[in-house]
Amino acid sequence: MDYYGSQLTRLIEQLSSLPGIGGKTAQRLAFHIVNMPKERVKQLSDAITDAREHICYCKNCFTLTDQEICPICSNPDRDRKTIMVVENSRDLAAYEKTGKYRGVYHVLQGAISPMLGIGPGDIKLKELMQRLQEDVNEVIIATGSSLEGETTAMYISKLIKPTGIRVTRIASGVPVGGDLEYIDEVTLLRALDGRVEL
Amino acid sequence: MDYYGSQLTRLIEQLSSLPGIGGKTAQRLAFHIVNMPKERVKQLSDAITDAREHICYCKNCFTLTDQEICPICSNPDRDRKTIMVVENSRDLAAYEKTGKYRGVYHVLQGAISPMLGIGPGDIKLKELMQRLQEDVNEVIIATGSSLEGETTAMYISKLIKPTGIRVTRIASGVPVGGDLEYIDEVTLLRALDGRVEL
Repeated sequence: MDYYGSQLTRLIEQLSSLPGIGGKTAQRLAFHIVNMPKERVKQLSDAITDAREHICYCKNCFTLTDQEICPICSNPDRDRKTIMVVENSRDLAAYEKTGKYRGVYHVLQGAISPMLGIGPGDIKLKELMQRLQEDVNEVIIATGSSLEGETTAMYISKLIKPTGIRVTRIASGVPVGGDLEYIDEVTLLRALDGRVEL
Repeated sequence: MDYYGSQLTRLIEQLSSLPGIGGKTAQRLAFHIVNMPKERVKQLSDAITDAREHICYCKNCFTLTDQEICPICSNPDRDRKTIMVVENSRDLAAYEKTGKYRGVYHVLQGAISPMLGIGPGDIKLKELMQRLQEDVNEVIIATGSSLEGETTAMYISKLIKPTGIRVTRIASGVPVGGDLEYIDEVTLLRALDGRVEL
């Protein structure tokens, strides 16, 4: 299908190998890119290589970052005594966008999944337990509400309970603005079980 | 929103400036990219700069390509006496994917649009008329069926008619596999007007 010439075809192939980018989208992006000013193209291509070059895990919370210690861990205004445990950096970003959470994070970089052969040793659990040696008031478990997320939450809470540190789990229930009729039965039952006094 | 560190944030910003890529998709792509092997990242970034660096219009048909004459125009097996006129290189690609068209193309790089102030002088029409000085049997007008595409088709056919060269327009009607109930009235009427003997 070389009707563009090799360079453009190669760009389309490269773009369509990215997740969620199909052939049509890759083609549209490629045409956009070749019509962009050269310096913007350079910026895009540099951003790609630079990010890959400098990426690493934060030595403290294990989120993806380009510094030894990530901006959140090195922020003196954050409350180091509250640790929110999440599965990955995207989940961290989701909570950061709320702008309300003032504690720090611990990114497990995965969740326990016997199906996929991922055990407690394959995620950053040992590192979490090490952090708990310091003065910590509360561990908020914010792993997903999938089977893997729930399993991980249960496992972590059992590990931490003996230390006497407070362990909490984010609430599950009906999303704000969600129509009850479109929500699955398990979530509806959870929302009922977790009902609060008004 | 610098919770990733500057490099990753910059990559996300760059990606989300592309058309059809929102914040969430940009974030997903960025995380995918920083987890890709370094040589694959280099290939992607090189493909972007190389394509932009080498892109130009084919001197003959004005499609985007990286050669002086595009692969289609330089293919000796194509029928140079049949020219299909399209609005852009994506439309050319769409017809190439059918694998059945053996003629060559002429890419207008736009369509006449009084609304947007694009006149006949702003698209590659003069260049089309120059090509018609050579031995051409048929010009197939395959501009879109939008108002602009139709206007352009009418304009071109009026220009070419006096030369005695055959001018045709691709059929408009019901798409193959389309349910009649979901198709707009104008298309339905076109399909009726354009009915053929069985």
